[in-house]
Amino acid sequence: MAPGRNILPFHKKDVPNGQSNGHTNGTARNTSPSSSERTLSLTSKWRNEFVAAAAEFAGTFMFLFFAFGGTQVANSAATASDATTSGQQSHSITQVPNTSVLLYISLMFGFSLMVNVWVFFRVSGGLFNPAVTLGLYLIGALKATRAIFCFITQMLAGMAAAGVVSAILPGPLNVSTTLGSGVSVAQGVFLEMFLTSLLVFTIFMLAAEKHKATFLAPVGIGLALFVAELVGVFYTGGSLNPTRSFGPCVVTHNFPGYHYIYWFGPLMGTLLAWGMYKIVKSVEYQTVNPGQDFDDHEAALFHPPDDPSSAEQVERPNVAAIAVEEAMEAVRMASETSHSREQKEGIEERMSSDRGSSPIGSKSEDLGRTGHVGMGTAHSQRD
Amino acid sequence: MAPGRNILPFHKKDVPNGQSNGHTNGTARNTSPSSSERTLSLTSKWRNEFVAAAAEFAGTFMFLFFAFGGTQVANSAATASDATTSGQQSHSITQVPNTSVLLYISLMFGFSLMVNVWVFFRVSGGLFNPAVTLGLYLIGALKATRAIFCFITQMLAGMAAAGVVSAILPGPLNVSTTLGSGVSVAQGVFLEMFLTSLLVFTIFMLAAEKHKATFLAPVGIGLALFVAELVGVFYTGGSLNPTRSFGPCVVTHNFPGYHYIYWFGPLMGTLLAWGMYKIVKSVEYQTVNPGQDFDDHEAALFHPPDDPSSAEQVERPNVAAIAVEEAMEAVRMASETSHSREQKEGIEERMSSDRGSSPIGSKSEDLGRTGHVGMGTAHSQRD
Amino acid sequence: MAPGRNILPFHKKDVPNGQSNGHTNGTARNTSPSSSERTLSLTSKWRNEFVAAAAEFAGTFMFLFFAFGGTQVANSAATASDATTSGQQSHSITQVPNTSVLLYISLMFGFSLMVNVWVFFRVSGGLFNPAVTLGLYLIGALKATRAIFCFITQMLAGMAAAGVVSAILPGPLNVSTTLGSGVSVAQGVFLEMFLTSLLVFTIFMLAAEKHKATFLAPVGIGLALFVAELVGVFYTGGSLNPTRSFGPCVVTHNFPGYHYIYWFGPLMGTLLAWGMYKIVKSVEYQTVNPGQDFDDHEAALFHPPDDPSSAEQVERPNVAAIAVEEAMEAVRMASETSHSREQKEGIEERMSSDRGSSPIGSKSEDLGRTGHVGMGTAHSQRD
Amino acid sequence: MAPGRNILPFHKKDVPNGQSNGHTNGTARNTSPSSSERTLSLTSKWRNEFVAAAAEFAGTFMFLFFAFGGTQVANSAATASDATTSGQQSHSITQVPNTSVLLYISLMFGFSLMVNVWVFFRVSGGLFNPAVTLGLYLIGALKATRAIFCFITQMLAGMAAAGVVSAILPGPLNVSTTLGSGVSVAQGVFLEMFLTSLLVFTIFMLAAEKHKATFLAPVGIGLALFVAELVGVFYTGGSLNPTRSFGPCVVTHNFPGYHYIYWFGPLMGTLLAWGMYKIVKSVEYQTVNPGQDFDDHEAALFHPPDDPSSAEQVERPNVAAIAVEEAMEAVRMASETSHSREQKEGIEERMSSDRGSSPIGSKSEDLGRTGHVGMGTAHSQRD
Repeated sequence: MAPGRNILPFHKKDVPNGQSNGHTNGTARNTSPSSSERTLSLTSKWRNEFVAAAAEFAGTFMFLFFAFGGTQVANSAATASDATTSGQQSHSITQVPNTSVLLYISLMFGFSLMVNVWVFFRVSGGLFNPAVTLGLYLIGALKATRAIFCFITQMLAGMAAAGVVSAILPGPLNVSTTLGSGVSVAQGVFLEMFLTSLLVFTIFMLAAEKHKATFLAPVGIGLALFVAELVGVFYTGGSLNPTRSFGPCVVTHNFPGYHYIYWFGPLMGTLLAWGMYKIVKSVEYQTVNPGQDFDDHEAALFHPPDDPSSAEQVERPNVAAIAVEEAMEAVRMASETSHSREQKEGIEERMSSDRGSSPIGSKSEDLGRTGHVGMGTAHSQRD
Repeated sequence: MAPGRNILPFHKKDVPNGQSNGHTNGTARNTSPSSSERTLSLTSKWRNEFVAAAAEFAGTFMFLFFAFGGTQVANSAATASDATTSGQQSHSITQVPNTSVLLYISLMFGFSLMVNVWVFFRVSGGLFNPAVTLGLYLIGALKATRAIFCFITQMLAGMAAAGVVSAILPGPLNVSTTLGSGVSVAQGVFLEMFLTSLLVFTIFMLAAEKHKATFLAPVGIGLALFVAELVGVFYTGGSLNPTRSFGPCVVTHNFPGYHYIYWFGPLMGTLLAWGMYKIVKSVEYQTVNPGQDFDDHEAALFHPPDDPSSAEQVERPNVAAIAVEEAMEAVRMASETSHSREQKEGIEERMSSDRGSSPIGSKSEDLGRTGHVGMGTAHSQRD
Repeated sequence: MAPGRNILPFHKKDVPNGQSNGHTNGTARNTSPSSSERTLSLTSKWRNEFVAAAAEFAGTFMFLFFAFGGTQVANSAATASDATTSGQQSHSITQVPNTSVLLYISLMFGFSLMVNVWVFFRVSGGLFNPAVTLGLYLIGALKATRAIFCFITQMLAGMAAAGVVSAILPGPLNVSTTLGSGVSVAQGVFLEMFLTSLLVFTIFMLAAEKHKATFLAPVGIGLALFVAELVGVFYTGGSLNPTRSFGPCVVTHNFPGYHYIYWFGPLMGTLLAWGMYKIVKSVEYQTVNPGQDFDDHEAALFHPPDDPSSAEQVERPNVAAIAVEEAMEAVRMASETSHSREQKEGIEERMSSDRGSSPIGSKSEDLGRTGHVGMGTAHSQRD
Repeated sequence: MAPGRNILPFHKKDVPNGQSNGHTNGTARNTSPSSSERTLSLTSKWRNEFVAAAAEFAGTFMFLFFAFGGTQVANSAATASDATTSGQQSHSITQVPNTSVLLYISLMFGFSLMVNVWVFFRVSGGLFNPAVTLGLYLIGALKATRAIFCFITQMLAGMAAAGVVSAILPGPLNVSTTLGSGVSVAQGVFLEMFLTSLLVFTIFMLAAEKHKATFLAPVGIGLALFVAELVGVFYTGGSLNPTRSFGPCVVTHNFPGYHYIYWFGPLMGTLLAWGMYKIVKSVEYQTVNPGQDFDDHEAALFHPPDDPSSAEQVERPNVAAIAVEEAMEAVRMASETSHSREQKEGIEERMSSDRGSSPIGSKSEDLGRTGHVGMGTAHSQRD
C-alpha cells in the first residue's frame, strides 16, 4: 500500500534510492506537523512577515533603480535637444513632448515592473507600490500587519533607489515627477487616479483572481503600467505610486508644492479600482460570458445553463477529474455486473437506494449538470 | 461514498472544516437548482445582460481613455515639430510621416486594447468595438439582445472617453481620425476594411475558437490592433472601430464629410473576416495540418489518419483521460483474470459479447483509432 | 458501460440531451470510418491540399499586406527627412540609418508575421515563406505535393499584396529590398543567410519540435523575424523570404541586378538551419540539459540517470498518468490482500510470474526508471 | 495486461501498427538499460558535455551576431547625426544620449537573447554568458566540467561573432563597450554589478526554480536584459557579459584601460544575485505568499496553514492526482461495502488497522491536510 503515499503531494525528497519504511514514515509525518505546528506558528508568522518585507524592499529597489536609471538617461536626452523635450524636467522651460523620450521612459517603467514582479511574484507577490498594497489589503489578499510592513519597506526602498541612482550615474538626479505645463493640480489628481485605477484593477483581475492566465499576471501588470505611462509621463510624470514620487524628492531635497497629488491621486485610483472590483465580484461576473478562456477539452465538457445565476454553475470543468469519474463509474458498473450472477437480489436493492439519496447518486447528478450524456445512458442501462 | 461528490467540479466552498452531512447536502443541491432555476432564469438573464453592458461601458471607456490620452500627447509632439508630423491632425498642413509619433500612437492603441481586453476577457469578453460585436453576433457567439446593448454602451463609452480626455488634458482635443493627404475616400474604405478584417479574424481564430492558446487571446488581439495601427494611423487614422471615430467628433463638434468611411470600412472588414471564418470552418480547417500546437505528450499519443476528413479525427488527445482509460482497462482485465478461476465459463461468454456490440468494445476501437498500440495487444491477449 | 464511450476523445457533439442508444451508435462509429475512409481518403487528401494552399495564400497576403503597408509609411518618412534615411530606398542617395524608421519596419515585419502565424497556425501552419516551406519539407514536416502548392500560392500572394498596397496607398510603391551603400553582393548573401537561418531554426525548434511552449511558437517566430529585421533592414532590406522580395519587383517592374541574392541567401540559410537541426537531433539534444522547461510537479517526478544516453530516458513525466498508475497499483495490491484470505495459495503463484515476464512487471520497472520510490517499496511489501 | 505498459512514459515509438510481443519487449527493455548503461555512461557523459559546449558556441554566436549587427547599425546612425549620439562609440566626441538609438540597441540585445535562449533552452539551457555560467555553477545547476567547457566556447563564440560581423557589414566594427563621459570606473563597476544581478537573479527565479511559468523563462530572461540595457547602454555600454565585451576588443585590437570592469562588474553582480538567491531559498520563500500563481482549480484545492513554516506545506496541489485519489478511495469503500455482506467481521478488523498505521491511512491524512472535506466525511461514513 506504500506507493500511494507518494501520490499527493509529490514530495521532492522522495528520491529513488530512499527505501524508507512507509509505516514509520507515515506516522512520523502525521504527528510531527500537528505537534510542532503550534510551536512554529508564531515564529513562522514573523519570519514570513520579515521575508515579505525584505523581498518588497529588494523588489521595489530593483524596480525603481532601473526605472530611475532609464529615466535619467532619457531626461538627459530631452534636456540636451533644444527643440523637443519630454516636459518632465523641473529645470526645463521647453514644453513640447518628445515621443521618443516619452516612449523610452514608459518602456523603462513598464518593463522594469514586469520583470521584477515576475521575479518576486512567488516570493512577496511583487507589489512595489503603496497604492497596490492598499488595494490588496482592501480586498483581503493582504493582512494589516503585512500591509504596514510592506508600506514601510517600499518607502525606504524608493529613497534608497533614488540615492543609489544619484550616486552611480553622472549628473544631477533628474527623475522627479512634475506637472507638465498647462496641467492644473485638479487635472493632475484625476489623471493619476485614472492611471492608477487601470494598474490596480489589472492586478485585481489578473493576479488576485485565480484563473488560467494567473501565472502570467506579471506580464499583464507590466503592460498596464506601460500603457499608463505612455499617457501620463508628459502630463504628471506618470507616478501611480507615492514611493516613486517621494524617493527622488527626498534625495534632491526638492518637493513641489503639489507633491500631495502623488499620494491623493493613487489613493483615489485604488479606491476606484476597489469599487469596480467589488461590483464585478458582487454580480458574479463569471456568469456573464462563461467559458471565454477555456481550451478545446474544457469547452467540449462545458454545458452551462442558458442564463447562469451563480459563478458555481460556470466553473471551469476539471478535465482530469471528469475522466477519472467516468472511468470509475464504468468500473463500478462492470463490477456490479460481474457480481450480479452471485448477488442478483442484493444488487437491485442497492441500486435503488443508490439513485435516491446516496452521495454517488448526487455525484451523477453533478455530472449531468455539466452536461455529459454518458451518465444518462448509464442510468437507463442500469435498469 | 461522500468524497466522490467533491471531485467534480471542485467547489471553493468546500473548506476543510465543513463536516456537512453528504446526504442532506447532496439532496439539497440536486433539488435547489432545478426548482429555483426557473424562477431565477429571467432575473439572471437580465442581470447578465446588464452586467455585460456595464462591463463593455467600463472597458471601452478605459481602452479609449488611454488610447486618446496617448494620441493627444503624440499629436502635440507632431504639431510642434515643424519638419515632421504624423499626418493625423485636422489642423496641420504638413503631411510627412513621423515614425516616432506613429509608433507611439500604434503602441498606445494596441497595448491599451491588449491590457483592457485581458482584464475584461472573463467578464464581458472585451469587445469594445461595434465591428467586433457584429462579428461575434454573426458567428453566433453573441445573441442579438446582448449585441444591441453592447453596441449602445460602446458608443456611449466612446463619447465619455473623448469628453473626459478633453477635460483632463490641456489643449484642444486632437484625436480625431482623418484621411492623410493623397488618400482618397475609396482608398480609405478599403484600407479600413483590410485593417478591421485582421482584427476581427484574429478574434475569431484566437478567442472564439477554443484551443490551447485561447487563454492568451488578449495578447494576440492587442498585437493585431498594434500591427493594423502601424499601417493605418498615417493614412486613415487607423480607426477600425466606429466608436473610436465617433466619440471625438461628438466632443469636438466636427465631423468630416467622409466620416461614414469609419462605419462602412469596419463593417466591410467584419463581413470579410466573417466570410473567411465561414470558409475555414466549413472545410474543417483542423484536418489540414493537425497536431500543430500539441505538446510532447499529446504529439506522442496523436496518430491521425493520413488524410483526415473530419475535425473529429484530429481532436487533441486528452492525455489524462487516456491514462485513466488504459489503467482501467488493465485493472478490468486483471480482475477478470482473478475471477477466472471461479467463473471460467461465465467470463468467456462475456468477453465475446464485449467485442461485438458492447459500448466498452466500441471504446477500445476509439482508442485504437487514436493510434495506441496497447489496445491491439489487449485484444490478442484476451483470447 | 456506455458512459466510458465518451471519455476519449471528448466529442463536442455529446450534448446533454442526446439519449442515443450506445450500442447502435458504437457499432455505427466502428464501421463507418473503416468503410468510408477509403472512399473519402482521396477526396480528403486533395481537399486538404487545397485548403492548405488557400490558407497560405490568405495568410501570406495578410502578412505582406501589413508589412508592405507599414514599410511604405516608414520609407516615406525616411525619404522626406533630409538628414537621415533608412538606406532602404532605391531612389534615395542618402545612406545614413534612421533608427526610428528601421525600428518601425522591423516591428512591422516581425509583428505582422507573429499575428498572422498565430491566426493561421492551426490551419496551414503559417509558413508564408518559400524558405520556410523548403525547411519544413527537408525535415519531413511537409510532403512534396503540399510544399509545391504552398510555394506557388505564396508567390502569388506576395505579388497580390504588393499590388493591393500599391493601389490602396498613395505614392509610388517603395517597399523593395535593396542593398545598402557599401554592402557587396557577397556580403548581402551571407547576411541574408544568417538572418534566414535564425528564423528557420527557430521554427524548427519551437514549432516543429513538440514541447510545452509549442502552442506559443508563433510568438517566438515573430520575434525571430523582428530581431533579424533589426539587423538586416539597413543593409539588405531584411528579406529572408523570396516572396517578400519578388512581389514588389513584379509590381514596380524593377528588378535589381542582384535580385538573385534574395533567393540564394534564404536558400543557404535554410540549408544551414537544416544542418544545425539535423545535428542537434542526431545527438538527441534532450539528454544534454534535461528537465529545463519542466514545472514543479514534473521536476519532482523527474529523476533521470546521471548521464542520459537517449532522449527516451529524459522524457517529460506524465503527471496524470503516474498518479493514475500509482493509484491503480495501490488498488491492485489492496484487492489482492482482500482476496488473499480466500485464495492464498493462488495469488503467490501469480505474484512470482508477475515479476518475471508479465508486462505489468515491466511497467513497474518503467516506473522505477523514472525514479519513483513507491514501486520499490511495493515490491518489498508484496513478499 | 499489456496495455498498461504504454501508459508511462508515452513512448513515441509506440506506433499503432506495432503489434510487438509485450513479454519479449518488456524483458528486453528491462535488461538492456541496466547492462549497457555502465558501458554507455562514460560515452554519454562526454557526448553530452561536447553537445552542450557546441550548442553554447552556436547559441552565443547567434545571440551576439545579431546583437552586434544591430548595434553596428545604431552606432552608425548615432555617429552620423551631429547633434545627438548614443555616447557609446569610442571615436565619438559627442556625449548626448539619443533615445531612439539607445532603444534600438536595447531591443537588439534583449530580443536577440530572448529568441536565442528560447531556441536553445531545451538543448544547452541557453547561457551565452560566463557570468550566467558562474551563477548556475554556484547554485549547483551546472557541474564544474561543463561550466568550464561552456566558458571556453562562449569566449570563442564572442570573438567569432565580432569577427563575422566585422567581415559581413560595411564600415569599421563599432560595437565595443565603453564608458560614457562623466562615468568613473567605480561607477561603471557598480552599474554593471546591478545590471548583471537583475539578469542572473531573473534566471535563478524563472529558469532554475521550477514552477508553472518555467517553460516561458526565456521571455522573462530576454526582457530582463532589455531592461538592463535601457539603463546601461549610455553609461557603460551595457555589457553584463565578459564575452560580449571581450570579442569586439579582440577583433578591433583595442582594449580600453578599464576593460577589466566588464569582468569584475558582472562577477560581482553574479555573486550579489547568488547571495539574494541563497537567502530567499534558505527562508523557503514559497511560504511567504503561497498560491500566488495558482489557477482556479489549484486555488480551490489549496488550503495551507495560516502561517506555513516549510515549502512542503504550500506545494502546488496536483489536481489530477487528487481527483484519482478521491475516486480510488470511493471505489475502495464501495468494494468494501459490497464485500461486507460476505466478510463482515474481516473488514472491520482491516478498517481499524487502516486508520492507525497503514500508509493508506496516512495518505488520507495528507489529503485532509490540503484541506479537502471529502475525506473527513469518508471517515465518518465508514463507521
